[in-house]
Formats: sequence, structure tokens, C-alpha cells
Amino acid sequence: MNTIYGGVEAGGTKFVCAIGTGPDDLERTSFPTTTPDETIAQAIAFFRERGPLSALGIASFGPVDLDPRSETYGYITSTPKAGWANTDISGILGRALGVQVRFDTDVNAAALAESRWGAARGVDDVVYFTVGTGIGGGALAGGHLVHGLLHPEMGHMRIPHDRAADPYPGICPYHGDCLEGLASGPAVEQRWGTRGENLPPDHPAWQLEARYLAAGVVGVVCTLSPRRVIMGGGVMEQPCLFPMIREEVATLLNGYVQAPEIGPPALGKDTGVLGAIALAMVG
Amino acid sequence: MNTIYGGVEAGGTKFVCAIGTGPDDLERTSFPTTTPDETIAQAIAFFRERGPLSALGIASFGPVDLDPRSETYGYITSTPKAGWANTDISGILGRALGVQVRFDTDVNAAALAESRWGAARGVDDVVYFTVGTGIGGGALAGGHLVHGLLHPEMGHMRIPHDRAADPYPGICPYHGDCLEGLASGPAVEQRWGTRGENLPPDHPAWQLEARYLAAGVVGVVCTLSPRRVIMGGGVMEQPCLFPMIREEVATLLNGYVQAPEIGPPALGKDTGVLGAIALAMVG
Repeated sequence: MNTIYGGVEAGGTKFVCAIGTGPDDLERTSFPTTTPDETIAQAIAFFRERGPLSALGIASFGPVDLDPRSETYGYITSTPKAGWANTDISGILGRALGVQVRFDTDVNAAALAESRWGAARGVDDVVYFTVGTGIGGGALAGGHLVHGLLHPEMGHMRIPHDRAADPYPGICPYHGDCLEGLASGPAVEQRWGTRGENLPPDHPAWQLEARYLAAGVVGVVCTLSPRRVIMGGGVMEQPCLFPMIREEVATLLNGYVQAPEIGPPALGKDTGVLGAIALAMVG
Repeated sequence: MNTIYGGVEAGGTKFVCAIGTGPDDLERTSFPTTTPDETIAQAIAFFRERGPLSALGIASFGPVDLDPRSETYGYITSTPKAGWANTDISGILGRALGVQVRFDTDVNAAALAESRWGAARGVDDVVYFTVGTGIGGGALAGGHLVHGLLHPEMGHMRIPHDRAADPYPGICPYHGDCLEGLASGPAVEQRWGTRGENLPPDHPAWQLEARYLAAGVVGVVCTLSPRRVIMGGGVMEQPCLFPMIREEVATLLNGYVQAPEIGPPALGKDTGVLGAIALAMVG
């Protein structure tokens, strides 16, 4: 019997399902995220057509329950996304397909995929940030994905906010001016009155954005001490950001500790679903 | 042959050396940290008198080099402590005693000791803060001590600093108002003109201190997601701090994620050297 690995990238906007063993061996499909019933049924149908899976990885939007001792292990828990709170996504898929499921956050899975095949190949200490509608972060520490009481929620770190220089109060409904509140895509749009993609590279928006993202990078440097920090998501498509962030990180660290390498993901749009495949392969 | 574990807590002020297997089986001595030659010779003499060791753990002040691939692995590296920069502490002790050395930061070792015998017994996701002359933090993530590019340097996280409410610029020579710059013992003393132990529990110093330390705790919650946060060191001997910190953490998290348990170490003054013993026992 062949070994067939399946992966589901469960996103708030779309689901990506794939079978394969890496970037060069990947058969994928995607469809919009509607109701849990409809969306999960589409995923089940995709995998049933491709024969019995050996293992399935699910890389999910969250928050999720990763505690194997918990009654809601494998659930998407308190998400604000309509209809999806308390959805036993890994239980439903695992039972329907008769397969062992490995479940994690989308960003932890992305860190794993980039460590396996991408921008952090062979690196065991990796942080993956996504900067888009929200800010999320996943981490591999010593080769192990970080879980703990919940899982990393890097977007909600508190960072310095100079209200004289930037009176914008922040957009996070829970915390106002946490990292996500100050530096997510919607924060950029609300502060400047237009989407980031409309702001030229020399607009002051980017220097401010780089300063906030650098404070987040320094937060992970001081706690997780990654060798590599990978930053993806829509906001990071402004290419001027990387040099600015590296400079701000160096300024903030001020020679006290070495800065990690900071750069974009190498796996592009497939990072998420490859992360799910990587989860399945780890077993 | 008996199994004999040795531990060295290498502190900037004093060295503690011990043999034993845990809190109830510990023979210890301590002496001031003078020059590396003299101090390390005293440690060697202590262990030689007690027969051949099976393994030696060293829990050291830092920064230290924990990368086994590095040429300065096992060294205290860029410490400002006179005479101690670039000291091959683990190589010298290991060769003199003919024993395998396991080397880590004092605070990582403390996290390990508290997880093994103390306030976080059986917990695999632990952060240990020490708040004294400086602020340091160690972490166990999924049962593994966090290393990475260097090791955690939690005292140097950037946190919100409202200069209108607290114009004190911070005492960190590298970063000014990082966590250590705002909340270490010397920062408290410089800001208020007297040592923390002279300030009564209802002095506004403690509410401010709790706010800064809570921001640091939120920083580790969002990155390492610990189940337990242990806070020791001289500043934490003010007992009013714990309830204030718990309240500030809850306020900052605002229900978005659950707060970890926050409390003092259980192993008292022996946390450090027990951490070194625990390193030796892990092998």
C-alpha cells in the first residue's frame, strides 16, 4: 500500500486541500470557507476520491485547542468567524476518513513547512509571522512546535506606542494598540485612509509599520531566540519593508544580542497547505 | 560505582557548588565570585574532595554560548563582569574533573528545577523570571529548554512606557527603557530615590512595577504560551506584587487568551544550584 499524506489548510476565507509529500509532489484544490458542514464535506470528498490516507495534517485558523488532555482537543474554539466557534474539525475529518490527524495552528504549520522545505531549511529555531488581516505567529523551538497553555498569539504582544508620533489608537477589539492593533493591514488602512498597497514605498506609513513590526521581532528574539524570522502575509508584499525592519531591529537590539535573519517565506501560497502535509508526515 | 551528580550555580556575586539528586539530598557550599582562576579552582577543589562525578551541570550568568557547533560553546561570552568575558567555564571544569558537562543559563536551569521539583512540578511549559539587579528569564517549552540563536533574554523585551505617567528614562545601558531598564531593582531605586525594600506596599512604585512586569508576562504568554510563570529575585520579595501582577495581566489580556498561573518559586535559594543538578541528571 502506498503512503499517502493529506493536508488541509483551514483558513477563514478559503480551505486548501492537498495530497503529496512536498513542494515538488503536491496535488491541491481550494474552495471558499462557507459553513462548517458544507466546507468540511468538500474536504472529505476531495480526500475520498484519492484513496485511503496514511495520515492527515490540519493547519487551522484559530484559536484552536492543541491540548491532547482536553475534551475539546482538535477543535477550533472561540473564533469570531460566524458558525465556526467550537467546531471539532479534526474529529469530524479524522472519523470520516478513518485516519490519524495531526492538528496545529496555520502559523505553526507554516513555520514547520518553511523549516522543512523553505526559507529556513534545516533550521530548528524558527518564527513565522503573517501580517495581513490580523497578525499571527508560529514557532519551532529546538525542532518542536510551541504549544503550551494555548499556542503563540504573537499578534497580541504589547509594544511601545508613541501616541505623540502616532495618535492612532489601534484596531484590536481586545487590546487596542497591541502589535496587531497597530500594524495589521486594517490598521494601516484605517490610519492612512487607504489600503497599504496604494501607499508608495517612500510614504511615512512604511517606516512606522517597520518600527512596530521590529518591536514584535524583538519580542520573539528576547523570548524564543529564533535563528530565522520569516514574515509573510499581504502587508509584507511591500518590498521596502524588509530592509526597514532589519534596520529597526538592529537599532532596537543595539548590539546587545545578535539579530536573527529576517526574510520572506520561500514556499509562496503553498506554505500553509505544505505545513499541513508536514504535520501529517511528522505523524 | 555510585552515581554522583554535581551542580555549579555560577552567579555574578557568588558561586554555589553542590552534589546530590534533589532538594532532599543536597550537599552544598558557596563562595564569592572573584577572578575566574580563583573561583573555578575553588569549585574544582570542592568536587575533587567528593570523589569522581558522573555528570556535572553548570547554570551560569551570561550571556553564554549554548551552541554545540560553536568554537566558544560552553563559554561565558560578552559579560560586563570584570575578568569573566570569554571564560571557558565548562571546558575548564569538565577537563579538570574528567566529566561530561551540561551547560545552560542560570534562568533556564531554574525553570528546569522548578519544573522537576518545585512550583511547576510536572509542567512542561514554564517561564522563570528573576527580577533583581537585572531581569532574566528562562523557558521550558514542551519539556525542552529554549536555546536558539542565543538563549532567551527576557529582560530586554520592549514594553509600553507612558512617559507622561512615568518620565523615568530607564536604566538599561543598551536599551534605556526595556523591561529591565524600567523594572529591575536598580531602576526602582533610581526612580524613587531609595531601595525597593524601603517602599511600603501602598507606595505607587509597586503598581507601576506590577504594570511593567505584567507587560513582560504578556510578552511571554504571546510567544511561549507557558502554563506556569514563576517569578523570583529580590524585587519579588515584596509580597504585594503577585496579586497586582495577576490583575494587570488579566487587564492586559482582556479575556482574549487565558492567563497562566503566576507565582513564586518553591525551591527558595536552592533553585539555581538544583537547576544545575537537574541539568546534570538530564545528561
